[in-house]
Amino acid sequence: MKKMALLLMGCGGVGRQLLRHIVSCRSLHATQGVHLRVVGVCDSKSLVVAPDAHTSELDDKFLLEVCRVKEDGSSLSKLSGFGACQVFAHSELTAKVFNMASHLGLAVVDCSASSETTEILSRAIDLGCCIVLANKKPLTATMEYYDKLVSQPRRIRHESTVGAGLPIIASLNRILSSGDPVHRLVGSLSGTLGYVMSEVEDGKPLSQVVKTAKSLGYTEPDPRDDLGGMDVARKALILARLLGRRITMDSIKVESLYPDEMGPTVMSVDDFLSKGLPLLDKSICERVAKASVSGKVLRYVCVIEGTRCEVGIQELPRDSPLGRLRGSDNVLEVYTRCYNKQPLVIQGAGAGNDTTAAGVLADILDIQDLFP
Amino acid sequence: MKKMALLLMGCGGVGRQLLRHIVSCRSLHATQGVHLRVVGVCDSKSLVVAPDAHTSELDDKFLLEVCRVKEDGSSLSKLSGFGACQVFAHSELTAKVFNMASHLGLAVVDCSASSETTEILSRAIDLGCCIVLANKKPLTATMEYYDKLVSQPRRIRHESTVGAGLPIIASLNRILSSGDPVHRLVGSLSGTLGYVMSEVEDGKPLSQVVKTAKSLGYTEPDPRDDLGGMDVARKALILARLLGRRITMDSIKVESLYPDEMGPTVMSVDDFLSKGLPLLDKSICERVAKASVSGKVLRYVCVIEGTRCEVGIQELPRDSPLGRLRGSDNVLEVYTRCYNKQPLVIQGAGAGNDTTAAGVLADILDIQDLFP
Repeated sequence: MKKMALLLMGCGGVGRQLLRHIVSCRSLHATQGVHLRVVGVCDSKSLVVAPDAHTSELDDKFLLEVCRVKEDGSSLSKLSGFGACQVFAHSELTAKVFNMASHLGLAVVDCSASSETTEILSRAIDLGCCIVLANKKPLTATMEYYDKLVSQPRRIRHESTVGAGLPIIASLNRILSSGDPVHRLVGSLSGTLGYVMSEVEDGKPLSQVVKTAKSLGYTEPDPRDDLGGMDVARKALILARLLGRRITMDSIKVESLYPDEMGPTVMSVDDFLSKGLPLLDKSICERVAKASVSGKVLRYVCVIEGTRCEVGIQELPRDSPLGRLRGSDNVLEVYTRCYNKQPLVIQGAGAGNDTTAAGVLADILDIQDLFP
Repeated sequence: MKKMALLLMGCGGVGRQLLRHIVSCRSLHATQGVHLRVVGVCDSKSLVVAPDAHTSELDDKFLLEVCRVKEDGSSLSKLSGFGACQVFAHSELTAKVFNMASHLGLAVVDCSASSETTEILSRAIDLGCCIVLANKKPLTATMEYYDKLVSQPRRIRHESTVGAGLPIIASLNRILSSGDPVHRLVGSLSGTLGYVMSEVEDGKPLSQVVKTAKSLGYTEPDPRDDLGGMDVARKALILARLLGRRITMDSIKVESLYPDEMGPTVMSVDDFLSKGLPLLDKSICERVAKASVSGKVLRYVCVIEGTRCEVGIQELPRDSPLGRLRGSDNVLEVYTRCYNKQPLVIQGAGAGNDTTAAGVLADILDIQDLFP
C-alpha cells in the first residue's frame, strides 16, 4: 500500500470538504493501493499535527472533528484535548514542515485563500515536497515565486485554481507536453459573471440581475469583488503563465463592470446596489442591443493570444460555445494546431466546494507515483 | 535527464505521426528533463530494434526513415541496410520484449489496429512494463484480458482509444479517483456519424449525405464500417469498463443504420451506395421530422447509465450540448454528483492522425514518474 503524507493548509469550505472526501474515499483508494495520511492541518492561527508524523496520522474521527470545530467558527486550538495530536502556533509551521519533509515524502496542500502560503510552498519545493493548490494567490505572485513553485513541474498540481474541478489545467498540460502549441484561449471563468451576462442578454437590467445573483448566493458578500474582474484576471494570469508567458497581474488589461467612483472606498455595498448599479443599466442594455444586431452576445471572458492577455466584455458569436453559454457554467475554448477551426471545449460547473475539493483530491492522486 | 525506453507497435498513420511528434518535440522534452528513447518499432511482419536496447536507440534520422519507408508501403525489413539496427521477424517480438523489459524500464506503445497485440501487451504488464494504447481492440477483448491489462492501473494509459486526443479518459480517471460517482455518460463519439446526423437534420437525404461524407474522406472505404456502429460500440465498451462495468461486446445494444440484407456479404459497396442506401432515406427523414415536432434532434450516441450500455440513434433536446453539435466534432456529456444538473462537457475533434498521436504522446509523458 502506497502511503502519501499530506499537510493541509486552510480549513475553509474547500479544505473541510477535502477532508470529508478523503475520509469517504478510504475504501475506494484502498482498492487502488493508496492510503492518504493526513499528518497535519493548519489554519491562519494554529497547526495541528499527528504525535509522530513518521509513524502516526490524524485519524478519520479527528479529521471529521476538525471539520466540525471549524464549521462552528472555532479555532483549531480547541482540538488540543481531542485525541492524539499536538497543537502549535502557526508561526511554527515552517519548522514543522521542514522537519516532516526531511523524513518522509510529503505533499503540502493549499486550500487557503491567503497570499501568506507562498513562502512556505516555495520552501516545500526546495525540500523536495510536492505541492497541490486550490489557492490562486501563490501562482499569481511575482515571477520569482512562480518560477520557484513550478521549478519541479512534476511536483506541482493546481487544477482547482481555474474552473474549480473542471479538467482545464490537466488538459492544457497534456496538450503542451505533446508539443501542440496553444494559439488562443478564450474562457468564461466566473460563474457569477457568466450568470450576469446571460441574464442581461435576456433584457433584464444589470442592477436587478446582480441583486438576484446576490440573493441566490452566486456573488461574494460585496458583489464588486466579482464585478471588478480581478478574480477572473488571476485565473487568466495562471493560464497565461502555464502557456509560458512571463507576465504579472499588472500586464493584464482588466475591464471592471463598475467605475472607480462606485468603488468600495467610495460607497457602501447597499449604496452600490441601490444607487450605483442602476446608473449602469442603460449602457449595458445598449451594448447588448448593439451586439445583437450582428448576431453576437456579450460575454465576460479572458482572452489569451500571442502577447495579449485581457479580461472583460467581448462580443462573441451567438452560436459559438461561449455564446451559447447559459447560467453559471464555466467554459474554456482552446485553439491549437490540432484544435484549429473548431476549438477543444471544456464546460461545466466551475465553482462550489464539492467540485473544487474533488479537483484537489484528483491532483493528490495524480502525483502518487512520486511517493515511495 | 529521465530516459524512457519505448517500443512502438504499428506504423500506420498514427504510429508514423507519433514518431514525427517525438522527433519534433526533442528540445521541448529536454526542457522538461525527459528523453524518449525509441528502442524498437514493429509492424505486422517485422521488428526493428536498436543494436543494444540498453545503451543505444533508433536515432531521429532512422525514425524518419521508418516513416518514409512505411509511407511508401514498403516493409520495415527494407531498413536492414540503413544505419545501426537489427531486423527480426515479427514472431520474435515476444522474446525481444521479454529481453528488453527485464533489463530496462520499458513502455510498449500500441498504435496498431490489430487484435494480435493483446497477448504481448498482457505479457508486458506481467514484466512490469507500462503500456500506452491508441488501439481499441485489446481493451475490448475478453474480461480476462481486460483485467490483466488494467491490473496495474498506474501503468496503463489509453486516451486515444476514445475521441482521439480529446481529454476524455484522463478526465474520467480524475473524476473516478476523487470519488465522484459517474451516473451517466452520453457521447457522440464518431465524427462520421456526427456529420451524417447533423446533415440529415438539415433535410438532406441519408444516401446523399453518406456519399458526400465518403468523397470527403470522412468514412471508411466501406461506409458500412461506420454506419454499423461497431466502432462506437467498442468505444462505449471501453468507457463502460472504465466505470467498472464488467461487460463484453455482446452486452452492448447496437443499432445499425442499415439492415442485414444490405450487409457486406450481400451487396458490394457500390450497390450499397447506389441501390441500398436510397431505400433508407424516407424512414430517416420521417424520424428527423418526428423528433423535430417536440424540439428534438436525432444523434447517434452511446449511452451508459446504470446497467444500460447502448449505441444508436436517440432523440435529444435541440439545445443540449449534443443537440447543438454540428459537423464532425465529438462530444461527451458526463453526469456525476458534482456535475449533476448540468453535465461536464468535453468537445472537439475526435479523429485524425495528428490529434490521435498527440494523445498518445501526452500519455507517454504522463507515466514518466514510473521511469528511473
